[in-house]
Amino acid sequence: MPTLDFWYEFASTYCYPAAMRIEKHAAACKVAVRWRPFLLGPIFDRQGWTTSPFNLYRAKGQNMFRDLERICAKEGLPFRRPDPFPQNSLLAARIALALDDDKRPAFSRAVYVREFAEGLPVDDRDALAKILADQAIDPGLMLAAAASPAIKDRLRAAGAEAERLGLYGAPSFVTSGGELFWGNDRLDDALAWALSESD
Amino acid sequence: MPTLDFWYEFASTYCYPAAMRIEKHAAACKVAVRWRPFLLGPIFDRQGWTTSPFNLYRAKGQNMFRDLERICAKEGLPFRRPDPFPQNSLLAARIALALDDDKRPAFSRAVYVREFAEGLPVDDRDALAKILADQAIDPGLMLAAAASPAIKDRLRAAGAEAERLGLYGAPSFVTSGGELFWGNDRLDDALAWALSESD
Repeated sequence: MPTLDFWYEFASTYCYPAAMRIEKHAAACKVAVRWRPFLLGPIFDRQGWTTSPFNLYRAKGQNMFRDLERICAKEGLPFRRPDPFPQNSLLAARIALALDDDKRPAFSRAVYVREFAEGLPVDDRDALAKILADQAIDPGLMLAAAASPAIKDRLRAAGAEAERLGLYGAPSFVTSGGELFWGNDRLDDALAWALSESD
Repeated sequence: MPTLDFWYEFASTYCYPAAMRIEKHAAACKVAVRWRPFLLGPIFDRQGWTTSPFNLYRAKGQNMFRDLERICAKEGLPFRRPDPFPQNSLLAARIALALDDDKRPAFSRAVYVREFAEGLPVDDRDALAKILADQAIDPGLMLAAAASPAIKDRLRAAGAEAERLGLYGAPSFVTSGGELFWGNDRLDDALAWALSESD
């Protein structure tokens, strides 16, 4: 089965609709998805951006939120803007990496739902512990694992790999052959490319 | 018949596939298109960008050209990158504005074909005179009109209107009701919105 890497950042708005639909689209064309959490902050930092480009460039940010409202309406997803935006995604990303592969998608979707459907913070231990408990995962164990040097290293390594692959935004999709697609809009193209590589 | 404003910038890569397909898509859903040339340079300037963001942000620029290749392959459009990129679009935009409304689309498409299908410069009088002559338009008359204070003012006014509408990139689509869509990807959504406003 061909595999597509789904690179996502918990602070990213367009990752929300992508995370909510990727498994359905991938299943329809028999492509496996690898969920790859990473942080965009360090990449933005090196571009001289101290916050989200949607905050730095006001007109762009304003229309992005409008566009996201339209997309969510079309997909039947609730949308509420979290305050502040962007949310600090460090702890959520560490937890996602610490989880077993088969637990990562549901946890990640739950973070996005809390953040962008409910507009609630996802940057603190209590919020993330609640999400874990709701999924019958021991919050204490996972929060401890997320704070371990091994997981901190893995997240840094994921960021370094993302940069090597040429990532500059999220969501991004990378095929086994290294073809990079950026943006929720490109999900189906990326899946088709992943399929074509396995022919 | 509902109308959609198509805001385009001759230096913009994604305007090429948008310009080549917009009339077909608009005709299919019975929406009229108003071709609105403008310059992004002054808007970028005010954001502190001295050239295209695709030059400023290297990874983004690299993937944009790859993405454009994929889009053009899908649409059956030839693609060749002009050098230098971006091309100076001032004269082409002034000519496009000086033309009668019914001559503007074909001239604009011909500029994009020269620039992005053939990879040739579109910033000089000779190149643009050739395009005009090919369309049985008097190049001398049009180049004189393009240099008139009235046309220079109209282009500045278009830029001011674009900024008032919240434009920050191209192509952009704006409905009669003021709904703004950014990007070649959003063409069909913008047409559907324009239609829905006329219900």
